[in-house]
Amino acid sequence: MANSRRFKLTEVARQLANVAMGQAHADLVIKNGTLVNVLSGELIEQVDVAVAAGRIAFVGNADHTIGEQTQVIDAAGRFISPGLLDGHMHVESTMLSVTEFARAALSTGTTGIFMDPHEIANVFGSEGVRLMHEEGQQLPLKVYTTFPSCVPATMDLEDAGASLSVEDIRAGMQWNNVVGLGEVMNFPGVVFGDPQMCGEIEATIAAGKAVTGHFPSDDNRMLQAYLNAGVTSDHETVTREQGLEKVRLGMHLMIREGSAWHDVKEVIKIVTEDKVNTSNISLVTDDVNPQTLVELGHLNHVIRRAIEEGVDPVTAIQMATINVARYYRMDEDLGSIAPGKCADILLIDDLRRVVPSTVITDGEVIYDQGQYTVEFPKFTYPERILNSMNVHRTLTADDFKLASRGTAAKTEVNVIGAIENSARTEKRKAVLPVVDGIIQPDLAQDVIRLACIERHHATGQISNAFTHGFQIQSGAVASTVAHDSHNLIVMGVSEEDMAFAANELVRIGGGTIVVRDGKVLASVLAIAGLMSEKSLQEVVEEVAQLDEAWKTIGCPLNAPFMTFSLIALPVIPEIRITNRGLADVMEFKLIDVEIG
Amino acid sequence: MANSRRFKLTEVARQLANVAMGQAHADLVIKNGTLVNVLSGELIEQVDVAVAAGRIAFVGNADHTIGEQTQVIDAAGRFISPGLLDGHMHVESTMLSVTEFARAALSTGTTGIFMDPHEIANVFGSEGVRLMHEEGQQLPLKVYTTFPSCVPATMDLEDAGASLSVEDIRAGMQWNNVVGLGEVMNFPGVVFGDPQMCGEIEATIAAGKAVTGHFPSDDNRMLQAYLNAGVTSDHETVTREQGLEKVRLGMHLMIREGSAWHDVKEVIKIVTEDKVNTSNISLVTDDVNPQTLVELGHLNHVIRRAIEEGVDPVTAIQMATINVARYYRMDEDLGSIAPGKCADILLIDDLRRVVPSTVITDGEVIYDQGQYTVEFPKFTYPERILNSMNVHRTLTADDFKLASRGTAAKTEVNVIGAIENSARTEKRKAVLPVVDGIIQPDLAQDVIRLACIERHHATGQISNAFTHGFQIQSGAVASTVAHDSHNLIVMGVSEEDMAFAANELVRIGGGTIVVRDGKVLASVLAIAGLMSEKSLQEVVEEVAQLDEAWKTIGCPLNAPFMTFSLIALPVIPEIRITNRGLADVMEFKLIDVEIG
Repeated sequence: MANSRRFKLTEVARQLANVAMGQAHADLVIKNGTLVNVLSGELIEQVDVAVAAGRIAFVGNADHTIGEQTQVIDAAGRFISPGLLDGHMHVESTMLSVTEFARAALSTGTTGIFMDPHEIANVFGSEGVRLMHEEGQQLPLKVYTTFPSCVPATMDLEDAGASLSVEDIRAGMQWNNVVGLGEVMNFPGVVFGDPQMCGEIEATIAAGKAVTGHFPSDDNRMLQAYLNAGVTSDHETVTREQGLEKVRLGMHLMIREGSAWHDVKEVIKIVTEDKVNTSNISLVTDDVNPQTLVELGHLNHVIRRAIEEGVDPVTAIQMATINVARYYRMDEDLGSIAPGKCADILLIDDLRRVVPSTVITDGEVIYDQGQYTVEFPKFTYPERILNSMNVHRTLTADDFKLASRGTAAKTEVNVIGAIENSARTEKRKAVLPVVDGIIQPDLAQDVIRLACIERHHATGQISNAFTHGFQIQSGAVASTVAHDSHNLIVMGVSEEDMAFAANELVRIGGGTIVVRDGKVLASVLAIAGLMSEKSLQEVVEEVAQLDEAWKTIGCPLNAPFMTFSLIALPVIPEIRITNRGLADVMEFKLIDVEIG
Repeated sequence: MANSRRFKLTEVARQLANVAMGQAHADLVIKNGTLVNVLSGELIEQVDVAVAAGRIAFVGNADHTIGEQTQVIDAAGRFISPGLLDGHMHVESTMLSVTEFARAALSTGTTGIFMDPHEIANVFGSEGVRLMHEEGQQLPLKVYTTFPSCVPATMDLEDAGASLSVEDIRAGMQWNNVVGLGEVMNFPGVVFGDPQMCGEIEATIAAGKAVTGHFPSDDNRMLQAYLNAGVTSDHETVTREQGLEKVRLGMHLMIREGSAWHDVKEVIKIVTEDKVNTSNISLVTDDVNPQTLVELGHLNHVIRRAIEEGVDPVTAIQMATINVARYYRMDEDLGSIAPGKCADILLIDDLRRVVPSTVITDGEVIYDQGQYTVEFPKFTYPERILNSMNVHRTLTADDFKLASRGTAAKTEVNVIGAIENSARTEKRKAVLPVVDGIIQPDLAQDVIRLACIERHHATGQISNAFTHGFQIQSGAVASTVAHDSHNLIVMGVSEEDMAFAANELVRIGGGTIVVRDGKVLASVLAIAGLMSEKSLQEVVEEVAQLDEAWKTIGCPLNAPFMTFSLIALPVIPEIRITNRGLADVMEFKLIDVEIG
């Protein structure tokens, strides 16, 4: 297992010193590469790197460290780069387990991540966080956790599977390799002194760890109040002006390029045009879906994007290595190629493409010429985590019928308007027919049924409403990937198919499913109803089938799964469904479906 | 007292947030200055800075934070800079108490120091360190301590007043505001695994604090072994090549400009010519004498020197502010002007001269237009620290007479050759007359008597030798400023004057004295025999009188006090005197004065 090679510096300092002095041999020497020196900001030719006990022992001409047992890699014509560090990401967005994510990401050069397991926290609380964190600890990928800060996302509008208290945060800060507090999304709470938010931040600072932020607003005074509270980073910046402001105010700026969020093009102008000091800026992915991982890569794609926008390659790599390590105060171990640091090293042919031909972690070659050379350990989640559905009743078509309060043949209702390629929804109205006292969907208006079933505590609670914009003509969709509470959301034309989809998803343990006429068209996922245990390739194929199934039932949208997965998130405007009912986000209250 | 305004961020976060939001008023607002933004690396015009509870609450247009009670300072035409941080220095070198040093340094813009109280540690061990550290805690200057690592400097050649064990280091790391281990001078010990050095480093790293270094060698393999041991900085770099190597290897490079060490001119070329990334480089003073403080300033002089050599002023100020704070992982409190940081602020008229017209610490104007506006608290050292002499006998002329082993009228002796403006000495030989069995000095050869008396433990131990180079014609000099053990060193032509000088210095409690014909020409100092309790101006006058007295007895050297104070330091080549005898530094052993 890779981690048998992971030692604290003080445990192996004598051995490293002896190798440097030529009194002991290196385990591995990389010869004659061009060093990407992120410390001095230079490319330095004809450099050797000697490695022992999983750490770098010597950089320079390392012939004196080579013995008979030393593995020697010829790096002539290649660049020697530190492994890439993703300073903020959610593994759940990849739909992969941490293990399968690691297998996908390491080959792209990502050797360390700072993950915020916010989604599983909403399902299983601290236990879910602990399981994903533990899964990460045995991998060749270095997995650090920022403890989720806002679970549930709202207190009054919905019921999540779990909640995290200040005491949970305080306890989590003591876990090995928990390095901070996850993105503090409730920024108004921070600014106006919400006791839970303040308590979480104080507990984190008391533990000497980083309070990572999430500040999507343009309000400069709120931003400064947020900084005054002790938050030190942000990854929600979408404009050059916001970026400039944050760097000037000392916030660690994480410029994001995820599958849905493409912020590099605009925000990187603070580097290419405003020429600000880059030492407190990093590149992150935040949310990457499986297709992006296969098609574009991971953090190396973000670096490539920065280079395409005109950033010098060494500067771009600094923003995904040493700058991240310094932000988390781990630069004595991570983020550069220098004596004493962990030997997480990439050999790269083309510095502008940033695709490693060889990946070394903890001094061991784990990936070479397109093949892994190590086994990944198997992590087994408990059965109740794998099958996280807690509904305990069979849903019927009647569950999805919403009765009209009146007796008229038509009634006006509030409708959740979905918007393609946007996280926002639109608050719409529609007049719908009433048949036998039941409000009916209307395909002509593209208004179909939508429901949210509490699925964590077997309360049997269900709320019904209507949505516009998905253009579904038949069948139904159900999903437990439903940010942030991850209840069971169901949408469809036929209430029979909605019941079938919901029941089938409960049966398979959660995930996402598309059905029509009582038949499953496609489905994915299992762990906590959020992530698959399967490999990246399998998940990508399943997701492709799912995309195809969405089309089959009539939905022409780009990435409808993404739009649908946010339809129950009552912290983004304008209107959402939760297990408690229809939520008007602007008014921050539950409202009736029927108007008047 | 200034420190009543010093709070942790979490203690005042709510108040700061309220000020930022315009819901509470600032204590102080600086209006319309040009901000030296060390975070973005820019000069930004027309900036206000609002301060509350000793910290910065808002940066930008701060009109909304001004109330009736708010003090407003017009900074039009002035630069607003973070206070300067000296990352490595010895207060003892200034011959001032920490309080009087603070009074001298704050007016030059130094608002924080990282001191290594190495000299007092050699006299009084942990207790001495604790006293100087405590003296620092009540001042408007922020005083952080790196705990001395090499006390005594050598184990076999001399006796210091105290020694520090690994357990002392471990205990010291728990003191509030002890932030690291002081310069680890015994670099061969580190490289070759000396248990005490390794133990000290492990204890420091275990406490999460910085292991500061001292690496004056050109040996690249030893340097890398030293880094592998966990040392992370250096301030002994004198060449561009050494500097480049250290930055490339990830060592925090402290470029030094002290009274005697002028390293900026050469080493700064890595910035001005090699254009390396400067984020891990800082400027430090190390050793500054009182005259330099008066004539040139303190850290602001080092910044000025860097600017004179071609460094951009903002970059130079970064190297004395944010870079230092980041190295010590204190940038969330120190080193920049941004929301939440300590309000340690300078207003500067001319950015290339770096002389503040107003100094603010912890949000309070403490110095304005040449005047302090606060009282400095009085710190009282215990009597036994003030009078640290522990000799307990009256010395006589006979104590300074060295008998010849033979009966000849002449004998050949080893002589310590002093070299003007150098820390090195030269191993010389001389043939001296013997009268009544006593080896005589010989003014014609410029060879005079030199003695070292153990002064910490009242052992009565005295060693005698000869020195060349000072050109003294009459009288004697005695001093307890005698690095690093700070025993009592005495030099002179007349053995009667040597006894008088030594006895007189014991009587006044240590320091430095020049006498002739039984009369005191000049003297200084008291605390631990190292520092004065007097003000900078008084000490400068006393030192000027002392310099004059050196001239009166015939010494024409530049700064003979400095040369003399190193004559007992057995870790710098080639030959030294200690209380145990004549030390051949090259052979690392004691040798006889008489040859053959």
